[in-house]
Amino acid sequence: MESLLRQSRSMCPFLSKTSPATLRSLSTTTASHDASPGGGSMSNLQVYARRCPIMGKALAVQSARTGNTVLAGAYGGMRAYHSRAGRAGLHTSASKEAQAVDIENFRAKQVPFPQAAKPVVARAQHPVGAPSKPKVAKFDYDGFYEKELDKKHKDKSYRYFNNINRLAKEFPRAHMASKEEKVTVWCSNDYLGMGRNPHVLKTMHETLDTYGAGAGGTRNISGHNQHAVGLESTIAKLHAKEGALVFSSCYVANDATLATLGSKLPDCVILSDSLNHASMIQGIRHSGAKKMVFKHNDVADLEAKLASLPPEVPKIIAFESVYSMCGSIGPIEEICDLAEKYGALTFLDEVHAVGMYGPHGAGVAEHLDYEAHAAGKPAGTIMDRIDIITGTLGKAYGCVGGYIAGSAKLVDTIRSLAPGFIFTTSLPPATMAGAKTAIEYQMNYQGDRRLQQLHTRAVKDSLNAKDIPVIPNPSHIIPVLVGNAQVAKQASDLLLEDWGIYVQAINYPTVPVGQERLRITPTPGHVREYRDHLVKALDSVWTQLGIKRTSEWAAEGGFIGVGEADKAEEPPLWTDKQLGVDDVLKEIKAGRGAVGVLESILEKERKATAQAVSAAA
Amino acid sequence: MESLLRQSRSMCPFLSKTSPATLRSLSTTTASHDASPGGGSMSNLQVYARRCPIMGKALAVQSARTGNTVLAGAYGGMRAYHSRAGRAGLHTSASKEAQAVDIENFRAKQVPFPQAAKPVVARAQHPVGAPSKPKVAKFDYDGFYEKELDKKHKDKSYRYFNNINRLAKEFPRAHMASKEEKVTVWCSNDYLGMGRNPHVLKTMHETLDTYGAGAGGTRNISGHNQHAVGLESTIAKLHAKEGALVFSSCYVANDATLATLGSKLPDCVILSDSLNHASMIQGIRHSGAKKMVFKHNDVADLEAKLASLPPEVPKIIAFESVYSMCGSIGPIEEICDLAEKYGALTFLDEVHAVGMYGPHGAGVAEHLDYEAHAAGKPAGTIMDRIDIITGTLGKAYGCVGGYIAGSAKLVDTIRSLAPGFIFTTSLPPATMAGAKTAIEYQMNYQGDRRLQQLHTRAVKDSLNAKDIPVIPNPSHIIPVLVGNAQVAKQASDLLLEDWGIYVQAINYPTVPVGQERLRITPTPGHVREYRDHLVKALDSVWTQLGIKRTSEWAAEGGFIGVGEADKAEEPPLWTDKQLGVDDVLKEIKAGRGAVGVLESILEKERKATAQAVSAAA
Repeated sequence: MESLLRQSRSMCPFLSKTSPATLRSLSTTTASHDASPGGGSMSNLQVYARRCPIMGKALAVQSARTGNTVLAGAYGGMRAYHSRAGRAGLHTSASKEAQAVDIENFRAKQVPFPQAAKPVVARAQHPVGAPSKPKVAKFDYDGFYEKELDKKHKDKSYRYFNNINRLAKEFPRAHMASKEEKVTVWCSNDYLGMGRNPHVLKTMHETLDTYGAGAGGTRNISGHNQHAVGLESTIAKLHAKEGALVFSSCYVANDATLATLGSKLPDCVILSDSLNHASMIQGIRHSGAKKMVFKHNDVADLEAKLASLPPEVPKIIAFESVYSMCGSIGPIEEICDLAEKYGALTFLDEVHAVGMYGPHGAGVAEHLDYEAHAAGKPAGTIMDRIDIITGTLGKAYGCVGGYIAGSAKLVDTIRSLAPGFIFTTSLPPATMAGAKTAIEYQMNYQGDRRLQQLHTRAVKDSLNAKDIPVIPNPSHIIPVLVGNAQVAKQASDLLLEDWGIYVQAINYPTVPVGQERLRITPTPGHVREYRDHLVKALDSVWTQLGIKRTSEWAAEGGFIGVGEADKAEEPPLWTDKQLGVDDVLKEIKAGRGAVGVLESILEKERKATAQAVSAAA
Repeated sequence: MESLLRQSRSMCPFLSKTSPATLRSLSTTTASHDASPGGGSMSNLQVYARRCPIMGKALAVQSARTGNTVLAGAYGGMRAYHSRAGRAGLHTSASKEAQAVDIENFRAKQVPFPQAAKPVVARAQHPVGAPSKPKVAKFDYDGFYEKELDKKHKDKSYRYFNNINRLAKEFPRAHMASKEEKVTVWCSNDYLGMGRNPHVLKTMHETLDTYGAGAGGTRNISGHNQHAVGLESTIAKLHAKEGALVFSSCYVANDATLATLGSKLPDCVILSDSLNHASMIQGIRHSGAKKMVFKHNDVADLEAKLASLPPEVPKIIAFESVYSMCGSIGPIEEICDLAEKYGALTFLDEVHAVGMYGPHGAGVAEHLDYEAHAAGKPAGTIMDRIDIITGTLGKAYGCVGGYIAGSAKLVDTIRSLAPGFIFTTSLPPATMAGAKTAIEYQMNYQGDRRLQQLHTRAVKDSLNAKDIPVIPNPSHIIPVLVGNAQVAKQASDLLLEDWGIYVQAINYPTVPVGQERLRITPTPGHVREYRDHLVKALDSVWTQLGIKRTSEWAAEGGFIGVGEADKAEEPPLWTDKQLGVDDVLKEIKAGRGAVGVLESILEKERKATAQAVSAAA
């Protein structure tokens, strides 16, 4: 095997240039970061191999030849490519064992694609008794679909959608397929209930009547209007940036912006947090730029990677403020420091934070300089230091669509170059007008997001009191650890069927296998009655299905923050003082607070919110 | 130079395997198909080179070294890479001259990325008189944005958006930034005025009130509801398919579906019409699959390419029914024949055709078997033979969003695997409900699309009578050839400022350089008064700017169909009979029709349409 490796090294300029240590690292470093969107994973060496004009073709030829494993593992520790379904094989994790190969022999045998492949007859689709028709070997597309779906069923990642019709007038209630069957929604990203806000709805009704249902064109061809101008100007103001650009969704905003910058900036390197959302992962992949994945929220790892790059090479650090599936919060200030030190652009996804943090709801970056922004002084703040902020209009703002905000030149460059912006129909006027109203409403009113935070605290406290394993975090997300795909689905189904509570199970690929969870998102509408019901239901379901409690995780040494005794708990991002409950909480903590003091604060906040909302109706 | 080529061949396994003819072809075949979305073009050899682990890194190193041209042309006929901005340089077309290179010398000099590059100090951003701070070489991002924008300004592809507020109650009129300044919109893709259809608006108002502004989540997490179920079921019914899947836009539908199939089907080859939309080009690129571009609507070229592939390799033929910028129509039936012969999937984009063709508005594929579909017998029709149909809810259906329709298994596979579907917020309930109403309305009513066709004929006839160069086509699009980016913009500006007519100029990269045009889209609302005004305005602007007339193009031998005498004109897809005007037109042709007979038909149709619409209000 050693001699074979030497042989292949002498042939391949890549192998001959690369150290054994690097090769080993490349072949075992599974690009799990890549795994989430498409499913499956592949080693970095496989990624390289597919880009090589020789190996890429060779792999294609190989995968078309049934049973021929000559090429398997040609690049040292590369995983096996046995099946006819070569590409699909690449995406699944097969044996990690290295397989040597006779490169000389391979080169002699190799026939250029596409003439190489021996026809493989697909499943017979016609009755045998028709000998007049010539047998044509065709790819079996239906068989392929079946196989892909079977895989999903087998690993329990197949998704069954629940029919949930959220009722604007009974928020946070919804009806199922039947109007009579009502449930409480506990997993919506309409975090603040802005989807039923009377100001938003009024604007949308009026805009619909005056300007119609759709925009009728791309932004360049008849789809640009005062609603786009107004919305982008409001977003720019929200983030105290020179400009903003609206996309169909923040998935598209992230994908298009990263793909455009990464492909256009010469030799750009994108440094990406390992828990980044699929939209960013896709954008980076689509850019073709060099990608370096740093450990989640690990500034030391990020700095090591930045320091390994030449200073003048353009770099983008792509990360999030609130990571939506675990609720962790990115070290924004430290990343800004590193970006300035190493000459990198900062690309911050505030999708789960806009509307929710900061005195104007501009997100976590704004929240970190709460007083300065409350006083209208953004200059020199952390938010001011971020180059590109992306956000959504479809979560806390209750509508649909996404955006970027940044300098005028950056925004104009993306506007001018990104196909995902240029070649698509604009959002409808009513959507843009409604989103603008939602942002403005939240810029001027703190009640919704404060009440949301108070409800989050109340639910987390109650679940912790019941030994139900909340993955600890400083944000508004309540991830409850289950740890098994099938059980997570069972728990979700039981909650829906027996308790009228809708919380979707979050399974692979959205979270890693073994970290399956229920992701609970309180809103200002989740008053005590709903919260008590939820806690009771979860407690019962946990017992019924025998799901591990926090103390059981702790007995095993803890897992992803649950039951980890030695881990210091991060305080909530919204401080007691910012929530205006510090004095009351001090009393409670001093033992003077009767049970229900927090509840009475909540009730007061709820009434104030209801008044603010109805004033508009 | 010959010896150098031999030398590099002996080093590079790719070059040593590839014939000189192929190399030449690869280095001169500009991937112009790739050009439209990102701008710029590169040879196929450059594409290969960037994928090579050695050349890719070498190019990165090279482009970071100012003025060092050692690598330029390393792969035979490869274009020059001079500038610091290597990636950007790749996207622009430089000298085609081949440059030889001393590969040995290159290998000796080469230093692995990222340590290789010599720091290039960016523009000084701090005053010189601050010697205490160390000089840090950073990439000049602002300079990069400026350079990219300058390029756009210089080649006249920089886009200025017009503020157009389409008025639902005065369709096809709109106001500009000021409410008083009104114009007639002649380039909207709201082809049938469904954006202001009272049925659609009524549904949307009601849904907004009951179910709120936004969906509140992805389809998997609280964003799936009866509106999604109903809309997808209606779309499946429209196209007589088992299933359908709705996306944020048809850009996303095309991108996500092709990227997913192309990456998952083992060794998939995608055959793509050379005029395909940017969304398909991006989807194919993102799939990483092998792409073969066939000449626009050229079935012989397509067959040659299909025949060159092994029969059992999965293949997708991606094409459109109506190509929106020239109005040409794809040879759908012939492509179905070829797909069946060679075992390929058919992927048909009906974005500009849904709502507009066929007895139920299902598109051109339906139109081709008009009688069968009118009789409700889709089995065995051309539409039935198409594997994947994609369409939009944002053009003739007047809302926003896109979709695919196909077999249940195909749809379930895309639903389960496509990140662009999985990881994004659903369309709002009101949008989905409105779109469903629009589709159903057009399934049951032919008046709008017939009147649209009659208006198209009337405008084409009038322009031809004035010698104004309409690019001939059998569809509802009226592309008027200008042939120069600056003049096209001037014409558009003059029409807007002097005539109150809004027709956007279509420039590169949406159309090739030299084929710039005005793209006119009549609707049922463009009654005689507006049409006469348009023709008069165009005639005047053509004179004012000295733009070539049809006869002048003819004198030069014709160009892209304009003034090409020997070219047989394709009859309109909507026949006289299908439009119900055959008898009347026969009379006119026989000389018995007085001037205005067509106009009187139009008036009759217009009244019928107005009645149908107002019946709902």
